[in-house]
Amino acid sequence: MDFIKQPMDIENRSMEIIAPHLSGLNLTEAETTVYSRMIHASGDVDYAPLIRLHPDAIAAAQAALQKGCNIYTDVEMVRTGIHKASFNRYGGRIECRVADPAIADMAKAEGITRSMAAMRSFGRDLAGSIVAIGNAPTALFEVLRLAEEENILPAVIIGIPVGFVGAADSKKVLAENKLVPFITVEGTKGGSPIAAAAVNAIMYLLDNRR
Amino acid sequence: MDFIKQPMDIENRSMEIIAPHLSGLNLTEAETTVYSRMIHASGDVDYAPLIRLHPDAIAAAQAALQKGCNIYTDVEMVRTGIHKASFNRYGGRIECRVADPAIADMAKAEGITRSMAAMRSFGRDLAGSIVAIGNAPTALFEVLRLAEEENILPAVIIGIPVGFVGAADSKKVLAENKLVPFITVEGTKGGSPIAAAAVNAIMYLLDNRR
Repeated sequence: MDFIKQPMDIENRSMEIIAPHLSGLNLTEAETTVYSRMIHASGDVDYAPLIRLHPDAIAAAQAALQKGCNIYTDVEMVRTGIHKASFNRYGGRIECRVADPAIADMAKAEGITRSMAAMRSFGRDLAGSIVAIGNAPTALFEVLRLAEEENILPAVIIGIPVGFVGAADSKKVLAENKLVPFITVEGTKGGSPIAAAAVNAIMYLLDNRR
Repeated sequence: MDFIKQPMDIENRSMEIIAPHLSGLNLTEAETTVYSRMIHASGDVDYAPLIRLHPDAIAAAQAALQKGCNIYTDVEMVRTGIHKASFNRYGGRIECRVADPAIADMAKAEGITRSMAAMRSFGRDLAGSIVAIGNAPTALFEVLRLAEEENILPAVIIGIPVGFVGAADSKKVLAENKLVPFITVEGTKGGSPIAAAAVNAIMYLLDNRR
């Protein structure tokens, strides 16, 4: 059982292994960092051609962070996956309301999922924020509806729900939206670590620029 | 934006979509549940032929739960992903020590990762427990070393670290070990939601058996 035990060695070697899979995609250096960390979180190089990154997404997220924006997540796993020591420097909060009993009541009353009810309850607070969705297509559909119907525009939507019912459709609507810059992944694959990795990559870029 | 908003409908439809991908694998009903929920968590049917489930793993995990065993996780995301309302019925605790400053000191002093140091610090407490690893190959290598060299035997190891450095190797060693029943995934893919899904599937089976 001889293996690499140094965190920086592990990270550097991982990025070297991922690099050739990005070579045909014409990415900027910043985009390469975001792609690499999303692929690293999934262990799946097949993500490379499936990632969709709006050209303004990284800059919009960084500007929002520097203004102290909040991050709104659909599930606790995304909140847990965001690197606290980095995020705390910017002054915002990470909000997730899916486990709130009041949200469970609201979801039951309206016949919708809890993560959808949670996003609806945030309402205007989502404007100018970073929305990070790693699990629930219904949460992403709701954020897109709020943008389109109520003109509530997050700074960026990192929308990477996972699964076989609604996820691919919700991400397609996100990738085609003209109102909010986005980061997403085509198809059924995704998940909380991938969404958190995108957030962390954007903070990593900001931290290393200073 | 017409889409399914009822949680049970989403779950049932997902399981129907996954089923054909498991048809050639000769699984028991309980194994089908564990496979389905792991695939559901990844959104990736390509997991089907990569999952490795020791024939005693489900029963061993269930017996341990019913004795009130603890679950030891490598990262907070696995802890967050485990369904608390189900787990709390059994009386055990979920322990994760990766963010403990004392563990950071130990890791630095020994030149190892924090998740590896955390597993080493649990030591004999791991005996009879459920170990659930969703991120760090080094944590899994350490648990396997404790089993082999110090005869510390968890009831089951759910070892699904992710990535390009060590993950595939650590999971291969796990799948070939003769000391502890296991659930794992061949190759570089994996992650916290997949490890948590395996734990949750095992509890779901127990809950529905009563």
